Amino acid sequence: MIIRCLPRPAVPCFISTNSSFSSLRLRPILLTRGAAGKFRNTFGIQLNSRSISASLRSSAAKQLDNVLSGKEDDHGGVIVELSTEPMDPILFTRLLKASIIQWKQQGKKGVWLKLPIELANLIETAVNEGFYYHHAEKNYLMLVHWIPATPNTLPPNASHRVGVGAFVMKENGEVLVVQEKGGKMKGTGVWKFPTGVVDEGEDICDAAVREVKEETGIDAEFVEILAFRQSHKKFFGKSDLFFMCMLQPFSFEIQKQEREIEAAQWMTFEEYAAQPFVKKYDLPKYVAQICYAKRQNHYSGFSPVSTIPTFSKQQTNLYFNTNDLNVS
Amino acid sequence: MIIRCLPRPAVPCFISTNSSFSSLRLRPILLTRGAAGKFRNTFGIQLNSRSISASLRSSAAKQLDNVLSGKEDDHGGVIVELSTEPMDPILFTRLLKASIIQWKQQGKKGVWLKLPIELANLIETAVNEGFYYHHAEKNYLMLVHWIPATPNTLPPNASHRVGVGAFVMKENGEVLVVQEKGGKMKGTGVWKFPTGVVDEGEDICDAAVREVKEETGIDAEFVEILAFRQSHKKFFGKSDLFFMCMLQPFSFEIQKQEREIEAAQWMTFEEYAAQPFVKKYDLPKYVAQICYAKRQNHYSGFSPVSTIPTFSKQQTNLYFNTNDLNVS
Repeated sequence: MIIRCLPRPAVPCFISTNSSFSSLRLRPILLTRGAAGKFRNTFGIQLNSRSISASLRSSAAKQLDNVLSGKEDDHGGVIVELSTEPMDPILFTRLLKASIIQWKQQGKKGVWLKLPIELANLIETAVNEGFYYHHAEKNYLMLVHWIPATPNTLPPNASHRVGVGAFVMKENGEVLVVQEKGGKMKGTGVWKFPTGVVDEGEDICDAAVREVKEETGIDAEFVEILAFRQSHKKFFGKSDLFFMCMLQPFSFEIQKQEREIEAAQWMTFEEYAAQPFVKKYDLPKYVAQICYAKRQNHYSGFSPVSTIPTFSKQQTNLYFNTNDLNVS
Repeated sequence: MIIRCLPRPAVPCFISTNSSFSSLRLRPILLTRGAAGKFRNTFGIQLNSRSISASLRSSAAKQLDNVLSGKEDDHGGVIVELSTEPMDPILFTRLLKASIIQWKQQGKKGVWLKLPIELANLIETAVNEGFYYHHAEKNYLMLVHWIPATPNTLPPNASHRVGVGAFVMKENGEVLVVQEKGGKMKGTGVWKFPTGVVDEGEDICDAAVREVKEETGIDAEFVEILAFRQSHKKFFGKSDLFFMCMLQPFSFEIQKQEREIEAAQWMTFEEYAAQPFVKKYDLPKYVAQICYAKRQNHYSGFSPVSTIPTFSKQQTNLYFNTNDLNVS
């Protein structure tokens, strides 16, 4: 059975993590001071200070012109997002100090401060006022500050990188293998399955199809996840999830990628499995066994079924043993 | 069959992602200028400048006192890690400018600059010299700079947060359910399975056992992963992998956690599955079906088998359908 990695109509999901942040909505209204003492939101619309934030207005009307304003989150915290408009560090220091006093008075817990890279000059001030780094992306740094004396329950940053490997087998039993130009396997002569990293926002099933196409030129359809591995302290101390996928090819002429791939070919499964590297080590041996069982139709992995989670309209894939559940 | 989440002796793994960074070793020798014009590595040992770096020495002996020194990576790049020792931004600017000239001359590609939070005052300088943010952890910011005119192949940051849910069923068919104090399900009256976020460096199977213990006081043994869901644009735009796990309890008296849990109880599976929320939506319905099939021993998920990857001595878990492969 092949379930294509395509959306199917469905309805919301009840599965959710219970992180204190899982339902936090990031819709900051960050307001920065404009030239005329007005505030400007992220859309550049000037707002009269009296129209900004009910929570701030009610408790600290007098300080309104002297504090940073942000969006309350669902967990008793505040999210402040600065625009890229330049700000003087001395002014920022004054605003931040006053803001922290106000947030304390309001009983706020976690404060999230998102600084665009254009405002790198303000980071030192934030750190001096008790903020630390939460995460960074190319164009911004997110700092956090936990105000109360209670234990800090702010959620951690993303913790895993996700990779895929592809077991691509023709009907005659030949499998698609490559030798890479870089990495640990370089120059070893070992033929391995194509592998790669899942892009941000990319589905695992799509990533496997993309990597096979990029590395070898082969068009293939996703079948199922055969196994996965979790390992730790890999990339900058982060963890790694690696999904071994089965794909069914529908083109067969190899055009190898020049940048990363030294060689690519179709090889009989027996020849692949007979390589000393595969025979010697436990893990490739398991994977070869799984692939062999799959080839004999004696193995069920996890296939994706598209659904829509409860609190979102975005489709997501649920992967499970659809054979055992008779879902097609 | 129950496979405990414990290490088993095994040997290295051939599965690896082929990221251009997957094999990069982070063993920076960061050298910063000491008071006497000497350099100091991360262990605080002063080194004569002539003994530092063969690659630097060979190509730019004259500039040695005026550049930042780092460790070469396996991909034609450089990793510079500054210690927490204060550094004047003007001196840093001078060193960084000279270093970039030298790295260009040496044909270096990616430059990684790790700045501890104590040196937040240097970030602006680095950004002005063409660096951007790669990632941040509590105490440091990693910046990167791609030198050549060729496409930037630096690998992305960690992309996924990982969560777990726990299907904990007694022999009499009762399942462990909770109501949470926060989050989207707060106040809905829906009884849900315990859930939580996998800690940094934590195994999925251990996280499920820990969350059940923390939220309900119940001791349980990991059985297998029944299904998992991948969703995108969740936590700060990152993706989310949520693993639905089956656990077998071996204590039964509930002691609910005060901080997060409003209520916890054992409930018949039929009562759980009859909740309108479970019946109404596709995804909880699938999960309930999977759990029901599992209860009837008509479903095989993925169980962990401990192995050691090829290029590491650290044990990792390979999860697969051990029933179909007759691995116990």
